Amino acid sequence: MFTAYNAEFVFPTMGKGTYEVTDKIAELVRASRIQTGLVNVFLRHTSASLLLFENADATARRDLERFFEQLVPEREAYFSHSLEGPDDMPSHLRMALTRTSESIPVAAGKLRLGTWQGLFLYEHRAQGSQRSLVVSVIGTTD
Amino acid sequence: MFTAYNAEFVFPTMGKGTYEVTDKIAELVRASRIQTGLVNVFLRHTSASLLLFENADATARRDLERFFEQLVPEREAYFSHSLEGPDDMPSHLRMALTRTSESIPVAAGKLRLGTWQGLFLYEHRAQGSQRSLVVSVIGTTD
Amino acid sequence: MFTAYNAEFVFPTMGKGTYEVTDKIAELVRASRIQTGLVNVFLRHTSASLLLFENADATARRDLERFFEQLVPEREAYFSHSLEGPDDMPSHLRMALTRTSESIPVAAGKLRLGTWQGLFLYEHRAQGSQRSLVVSVIGTTD
Repeated sequence: MFTAYNAEFVFPTMGKGTYEVTDKIAELVRASRIQTGLVNVFLRHTSASLLLFENADATARRDLERFFEQLVPEREAYFSHSLEGPDDMPSHLRMALTRTSESIPVAAGKLRLGTWQGLFLYEHRAQGSQRSLVVSVIGTTD
Repeated sequence: MFTAYNAEFVFPTMGKGTYEVTDKIAELVRASRIQTGLVNVFLRHTSASLLLFENADATARRDLERFFEQLVPEREAYFSHSLEGPDDMPSHLRMALTRTSESIPVAAGKLRLGTWQGLFLYEHRAQGSQRSLVVSVIGTTD
Repeated sequence: MFTAYNAEFVFPTMGKGTYEVTDKIAELVRASRIQTGLVNVFLRHTSASLLLFENADATARRDLERFFEQLVPEREAYFSHSLEGPDDMPSHLRMALTRTSESIPVAAGKLRLGTWQGLFLYEHRAQGSQRSLVVSVIGTTD
């Protein structure tokens, strides 16, 4: 039977960095009972992003965060959108360069991720926040 | 009842910049009568892109545009793809760094966007163009 | 009738560069018999990526590859994730800046791509690899 399943959850972040959410998504896919289809994970924010990334070696994520600190520096002289501080505009730009949603295939009721892939919430604000995500699973239950 | 709804529309741009299309997408989601599911907005071009971005303060979009002008400069000495002018190759690169399609969850017949999220067509060509978009809504009507 | 169709295939790459996979995706969409819906192509790796890009003029792809070689240089002093060589960490970053999956609308049983759009597997590792892709087609067969 064809099903469209939506669920939402809030993930609290505690400052800049990458937070793995793969297990939570796998759990919601199981709850949907969908066997064959697609899951889309959507982040309802513009100063944080989502990213499928290497999840085995934490040094890869440290290098990622350092790379983006350099590629999108804080306190650019031309930034006019800085009401909320020096991390405000860089947050939007780092989001624009990564992703707001990721889609992952579901086969035999499971995420068809590669061996080294994990899904990460990438927080760009210095203080962190309560981040709201929507998980949509679409497919067949048998 | 499960439905797959496709619609296309043309959006005329008048030069480089970000153009909000959120209302048009919301209107097509209403027309689809789908209550629970996912909408994918797809841009049929390689010199413009789509981006979910901060829609409350226009200064954020001005900073975004300036950032990409600097990150991907025109007239790089090594560019060989420049038949259509100095904005030709930078257009493709700015597209590659942002997105060609965005997916947004649909719940209770509405886009589940965050408070500050809007969907923007990001035109990279100096002269603008007639841009063609496909909107696919997939889900259940009840 | 509503259908969710999944297929997987392996694409062997022979070093850094862009490899067009559009025809293979069109073939799998035909095999699915879906007329109206959406296809998602997902790459099960973190050191290669997917990208909808200009497919008419090969110079655009050469410029793209050179741009990313400069934007994400190899041998950055701060890289700590370099077990597999100098192309290891840059591969993950070039993937993060492009895309892991792309969604394309399906109408009248065909990909609704623009005239100049092709789907490319973008290999970031110097030696190439056997790359695994999942193609999910969701929609109606009539």
